[in-house]
Amino acid sequence: MIKVKGFKFSGISCGLKKSGKKDLGLISSENICTTHAVFTKNKVVAAPLIIGKEILKKNLVKSIIVNSGNANSCTGKNGIKATNEILKKIAKETNLKPSNYFPSSTGIIGVDLDYKKINKSIPNLVSSLDGKSYRDFAEAITTTDQYQKYSHSKLKIGKNTYNFLGIAKGAGMIHPNMATMLCFFLTDLRINKNVLRSLINEATSNSFNSISVDGEMSTNDTVIALSNGAGGEEILTKNHKCLPKVKSITENIFYTLAKLIVKDGEGATKFCRINVVGAKSERSANQIARKIANSLLFKTALYGSDPNWGRIMSAIGASELNEIKQNKIDISIGNSMVVKKGIASKRKGLVTESRRIMKKSEVEIKINLNIGKHSSFMLTNDIGNNYINFNSFYTT
Amino acid sequence: MIKVKGFKFSGISCGLKKSGKKDLGLISSENICTTHAVFTKNKVVAAPLIIGKEILKKNLVKSIIVNSGNANSCTGKNGIKATNEILKKIAKETNLKPSNYFPSSTGIIGVDLDYKKINKSIPNLVSSLDGKSYRDFAEAITTTDQYQKYSHSKLKIGKNTYNFLGIAKGAGMIHPNMATMLCFFLTDLRINKNVLRSLINEATSNSFNSISVDGEMSTNDTVIALSNGAGGEEILTKNHKCLPKVKSITENIFYTLAKLIVKDGEGATKFCRINVVGAKSERSANQIARKIANSLLFKTALYGSDPNWGRIMSAIGASELNEIKQNKIDISIGNSMVVKKGIASKRKGLVTESRRIMKKSEVEIKINLNIGKHSSFMLTNDIGNNYINFNSFYTT
Repeated sequence: MIKVKGFKFSGISCGLKKSGKKDLGLISSENICTTHAVFTKNKVVAAPLIIGKEILKKNLVKSIIVNSGNANSCTGKNGIKATNEILKKIAKETNLKPSNYFPSSTGIIGVDLDYKKINKSIPNLVSSLDGKSYRDFAEAITTTDQYQKYSHSKLKIGKNTYNFLGIAKGAGMIHPNMATMLCFFLTDLRINKNVLRSLINEATSNSFNSISVDGEMSTNDTVIALSNGAGGEEILTKNHKCLPKVKSITENIFYTLAKLIVKDGEGATKFCRINVVGAKSERSANQIARKIANSLLFKTALYGSDPNWGRIMSAIGASELNEIKQNKIDISIGNSMVVKKGIASKRKGLVTESRRIMKKSEVEIKINLNIGKHSSFMLTNDIGNNYINFNSFYTT
Repeated sequence: MIKVKGFKFSGISCGLKKSGKKDLGLISSENICTTHAVFTKNKVVAAPLIIGKEILKKNLVKSIIVNSGNANSCTGKNGIKATNEILKKIAKETNLKPSNYFPSSTGIIGVDLDYKKINKSIPNLVSSLDGKSYRDFAEAITTTDQYQKYSHSKLKIGKNTYNFLGIAKGAGMIHPNMATMLCFFLTDLRINKNVLRSLINEATSNSFNSISVDGEMSTNDTVIALSNGAGGEEILTKNHKCLPKVKSITENIFYTLAKLIVKDGEGATKFCRINVVGAKSERSANQIARKIANSLLFKTALYGSDPNWGRIMSAIGASELNEIKQNKIDISIGNSMVVKKGIASKRKGLVTESRRIMKKSEVEIKINLNIGKHSSFMLTNDIGNNYINFNSFYTT
């Protein structure tokens, strides 16, 4: 049984989803937490993010309240009012302050959030809190997700065992009117604020910021970490001998959740990791990996299991980086080198071999630019007919 | 009958296309031309572009030789050799120098160009030259195009009438292994070199550089203008009273050709112009128009005739421009304002009305940022199941 000391969870239905499925979740800590959050870079931002950013500055967060079914985005003053009313209500119900709660929403954009439905269900939400109900919470935050997403790890420091739990939602930002990427990371290890900041920023950049389903970003994307110290006396500072272990645990949890999101992309049949090595900088390696991951022509070739390396070459060139030397580029599909020094390998049987690799459910593509020592990667999936069907006929 | 004085055309089959369709074209001027060219920004560049750029520096171009069926891209030293052999052969055949010829190729990437097939057909290509055969040439440069693309205009200056002809190919860069954007612009008016440069650069930026089918750019994209002065004594300099008229003619021809390319996007069912107004700069307006035009979620909504303005709002925000004020944004679909000051218009019947507009074969979207006086636009099309089918199962 997964537990994170001092944290309780609940997930219920309040009626925002017409299907009657769970759509309201709560995480509550017994102590005030050390927090750090990363938000969407989209300049159009939902009401809960505007309010949530202010709340974080007060350093009083104990709990998180999340609804699915409505993103409360592009809702103007009504949206701000809705989130504030919810916070007021739950604060009153629990004898806390609104600033003890961090708000979050996911779902349709541009429709007023019916906060009265939420407020009516708050007593039930609060009374359902339980140390074991993390799966109810995980279910309550889903929208177009086909499965719940969580990942857990433990670490023994001294005589105590500390817990780390990540719960996420997102079906690859494929459906931003309905979906968004949210991640809630909880630990009962007390982590110093600055250490937590760098841990979360780094883990986010190597996971959620390295995925591409269709190159879109939502107005609600949020990663938030809560550390409550309920697991013991230990405090993780920047010189603590266990910092590398905690860093590795955090990164593994984030990477696992990011992979689950990419795999859950609607209509996706394949998961693909794109590794770019031999670049002049990590930044340029990432720029190229991103260009390929966002290339519709690459993604359709992936769908069709077509080892179409010309599209990869073209996407590399489209990054417009001046340092690229086209006659130095090597491209491998799995372990099969299809391009050497910018031209097609003419090895016999290569096309059959690379086509067989492309047919697998997980495909790895490696690009060696052979001009430097830096590398980066992106996680992506294919785009096929189901993507089109999901996204063309959604009724506004 | 369209004619441009002093120019002859031919278009024949040399066997590069397995279908036996025309795949080799020639444009030949009686005089040495003033030239200016704009090339792909892709850093992976095909052999004919590498050689063509050097040839242009010599200012000796009289003719253009183009093959379709093979892009001669990602072909290394073999590719350079192939283009040089073709230029040597045609120069010999016509008693000219290789540097009198500008080379161009379009078609599959990464496959060695069988230049011997071309060279064998050069005598036939040259003997087929004719002042009226521009349509044969237009046909010979097509790849996945469903129709030939050309646009013509005339202008009387003094007692002479001067001609302007643009011939293009491209099915929206939808299939870069097979397609590319090429445009050949010919005039019998003598245009000063610097004037020609600015005319072509501006017209390109408002046409071919403002189209997006899938956000891809090919390794072969080329726009080249040839002015031979065969129409009369007039020389168009920067202070010539007819410069505004020639500018307008050039821009109209380029815009017409760009629109024909977007409409010919494989699987495309709709043409869409995205206008961004009220921006702080033309650059930022263009950045936003481009973000929407490249948004797969917008393009699938267009395909499904879904007035899904949340996706437009999200794409605007995804441009990451700091100056955006989400509560000032207005969005119109056709004449129907769906978003006012960042929130949904609640006017009765609006959804039905905007859905009706979205169902048309040409859709105009207007975004007013209401923060400045600058504007820009993009031309795009929808992406539907036929796009996926065309691009997933192409056999490498």
